[in-house]
Amino acid sequence: MRATDIIEKKRDGYPLSKDEISFMINGYTKNLIPDYQMSAFLMAVFFKGMTDEEATHLALLMRDSGDVVNLDSIKGIKVDKHSTGGVGDKVTLVLAPLVSYLGAKVAKMSGRGLGHTGGTLDKLESIPGYKIEIGLNEFKEQVNKIGLAVIGQTGDVAPADKKIYALRDVTATVDSIPLIAASIMSKKLASGSDAICLDVKFGNGAFMKTVEDATKLATLMVNIGNLSGKKMRAVLTNMNEPLGHKIGNGLEVYEAIETLKGKGPEDLNIVTSVISGHLLTLAGITKTYEEGYDISLKTLKDGKALPKLIEMVEAQGGDISYVKDPEKLIEGTKKVEIKATNSGYIESIDALAIGHAAMILGAGRATKEDSVDLKVGLDLRLKIGDKVNVGDTIAIIYHHDKGVVEASKILEKAISIGNKKVAFKLIEKVI
Amino acid sequence: MRATDIIEKKRDGYPLSKDEISFMINGYTKNLIPDYQMSAFLMAVFFKGMTDEEATHLALLMRDSGDVVNLDSIKGIKVDKHSTGGVGDKVTLVLAPLVSYLGAKVAKMSGRGLGHTGGTLDKLESIPGYKIEIGLNEFKEQVNKIGLAVIGQTGDVAPADKKIYALRDVTATVDSIPLIAASIMSKKLASGSDAICLDVKFGNGAFMKTVEDATKLATLMVNIGNLSGKKMRAVLTNMNEPLGHKIGNGLEVYEAIETLKGKGPEDLNIVTSVISGHLLTLAGITKTYEEGYDISLKTLKDGKALPKLIEMVEAQGGDISYVKDPEKLIEGTKKVEIKATNSGYIESIDALAIGHAAMILGAGRATKEDSVDLKVGLDLRLKIGDKVNVGDTIAIIYHHDKGVVEASKILEKAISIGNKKVAFKLIEKVI
Repeated sequence: MRATDIIEKKRDGYPLSKDEISFMINGYTKNLIPDYQMSAFLMAVFFKGMTDEEATHLALLMRDSGDVVNLDSIKGIKVDKHSTGGVGDKVTLVLAPLVSYLGAKVAKMSGRGLGHTGGTLDKLESIPGYKIEIGLNEFKEQVNKIGLAVIGQTGDVAPADKKIYALRDVTATVDSIPLIAASIMSKKLASGSDAICLDVKFGNGAFMKTVEDATKLATLMVNIGNLSGKKMRAVLTNMNEPLGHKIGNGLEVYEAIETLKGKGPEDLNIVTSVISGHLLTLAGITKTYEEGYDISLKTLKDGKALPKLIEMVEAQGGDISYVKDPEKLIEGTKKVEIKATNSGYIESIDALAIGHAAMILGAGRATKEDSVDLKVGLDLRLKIGDKVNVGDTIAIIYHHDKGVVEASKILEKAISIGNKKVAFKLIEKVI
Repeated sequence: MRATDIIEKKRDGYPLSKDEISFMINGYTKNLIPDYQMSAFLMAVFFKGMTDEEATHLALLMRDSGDVVNLDSIKGIKVDKHSTGGVGDKVTLVLAPLVSYLGAKVAKMSGRGLGHTGGTLDKLESIPGYKIEIGLNEFKEQVNKIGLAVIGQTGDVAPADKKIYALRDVTATVDSIPLIAASIMSKKLASGSDAICLDVKFGNGAFMKTVEDATKLATLMVNIGNLSGKKMRAVLTNMNEPLGHKIGNGLEVYEAIETLKGKGPEDLNIVTSVISGHLLTLAGITKTYEEGYDISLKTLKDGKALPKLIEMVEAQGGDISYVKDPEKLIEGTKKVEIKATNSGYIESIDALAIGHAAMILGAGRATKEDSVDLKVGLDLRLKIGDKVNVGDTIAIIYHHDKGVVEASKILEKAISIGNKKVAFKLIEKVI
């Protein structure tokens, strides 16, 4: 086998065999295939795509390039979720305690944020003392004991994906649906859960701008998961405005706690309950999705899952006084209110711009090396379709002086007020 | 400027500015842009193509990466030709003495053969003593004195093209018409002639299999030449059978000498006269192409240009007894005749297979490092449309034992005899 022939075959639109994909991926991981052949191959994949079988082989080969977590010692059905990244997406913080309270096991490894989207690990670290680096055995013990744990990646997960992703990043080959799907799934499949629900975002604040692209990505990831023996579901959710009201690490934990107390924003309640409903059904805990959804929403509204969050924070060394009194998460942060200069309805919100505004305040990273300010961010008081009068507070900026002027300008431009009361369809479809 | 952004722009189908192409090419030549970004860029060009302006910028940037020959000290109009490569293509050996005899100046740098096509330098070296490495001043002096010289590349011509070509070769990005056109033209434009006629081959023995692709390539090369201030013409010639009868280095020189004596095969007479006719017209030596063509064909038939070949061989140190008695070119070589096993007409000849058969005998190189046997090859006695009876000699294999059996088998398969007398259109069009 020669790399050139495999590149040519893909370039000319022919599907590759498992052996051919293996030759490329394993060869590249072992430095037998140089960067320049892999990047030409990736560009050919960008143009010619991959079949579901090819993408599955790719995902499994990248998974098997590193450590694969074995969760067999945890009793019960292990569930997991993954979001393709959005603005204000704090679903994991609400969902993990919720599904754990309802009987599923959550042994979750999360990531950090980059660009305009946040990461669960950064958010959790806004609770002082919360340890995200925990050994694998301790991690499994915690899940067996209290039903949930959310930690950082342990071990060397999918190093082939890491190496390929770094190359894609500098060769304009990131935006390829099969490559994105295989990359995400290689890591998900390494994490050892039985049932996975994907939250695939579409819209101006998401990586997939259109429902069509999000559908393709979701369908492919579900197929990869199914072909790999996992129970899969994907939900397409609308990221044409941020999820919930609050954006920023401590602010999002605050909102997640409020939601677990039964006082959450409607969109966050619904997205969380939809994902929870699917996971409970995949796990066999509820018989139908409707049953799963209803019990999830009711549990949130009744505030019954909050103690699970407290248990997890305590088990991982976090200061639970921050959960009990979430005002502490933003203590000492300055506030600026943005007021409406005309009346009408909120017609559109540029979620990507909102994400960038939060990043400029210090809530996110432009590059992997940046540090984040856990106490800054935004509180969007109004959502699409809401009525607004001149002088109403549209948003509150939580800041430590850095970037306030720039963020205000972005915010004012990002939120459009018009005469139409626009409807907002939160859940597009389930795959 | 960032390489990633330029790759992305090309990937998304936007034309690049001169500055952007320069950033890529000059950056790559200076090792500021790594192989992996260039190969992704080349694959994006493979899929998205280039405008004539982009391809011209690319050709000129590659030309300017190295030495550009200045032929101003040679009096008169300097003409050049280039063939995209075929089987049995010995046109340069006939054309150079012909147009030189008719008043144009030929200061030509040629290349070696690779794969199934031959190279003029290898052919000339079958004349003992013929020096292909000559200093630039001596080269120009010779052209001023006798009107022609055919030598190897001098100096460092288009190193950017060399570096990029080596990368294309191992990343399945060779077969891109703008990249092929810019590569050829970067070297042609560096060679300093005023008027260039391109012989763009199409058919089973050519790199361009179809008239459509050959037309695209020819049109683009003519446009690049014109945009660079050269007088250009391209002729599309049919490579669905080898040109002339003989294939192999010494054998092709033999046939070229016979042609210069007025005893050449009809197709070689015509292709040479067509190219000569265009060059003489571009050079202003004849007023019309028809006049140029007629005088060229008549000169060949009258054997008047042969002394020019002898002059050149003598000037470059070659043993002219080989030109006077071309049997010496194949002296000592063994012969095997291939006979027809059925009667009819020659319906098709697989020129690519014929080229490979000659290579297997030792006449060509599979890799750049291979040496060639100057005295072996093939003599195809019959051409498409010729009548054949059982027992007629179809071809003669000239060999030194190596590869005879394999070459015979290939030959027998490559030449089809049927009932139809097929017409063969030698010259498809002029651009």
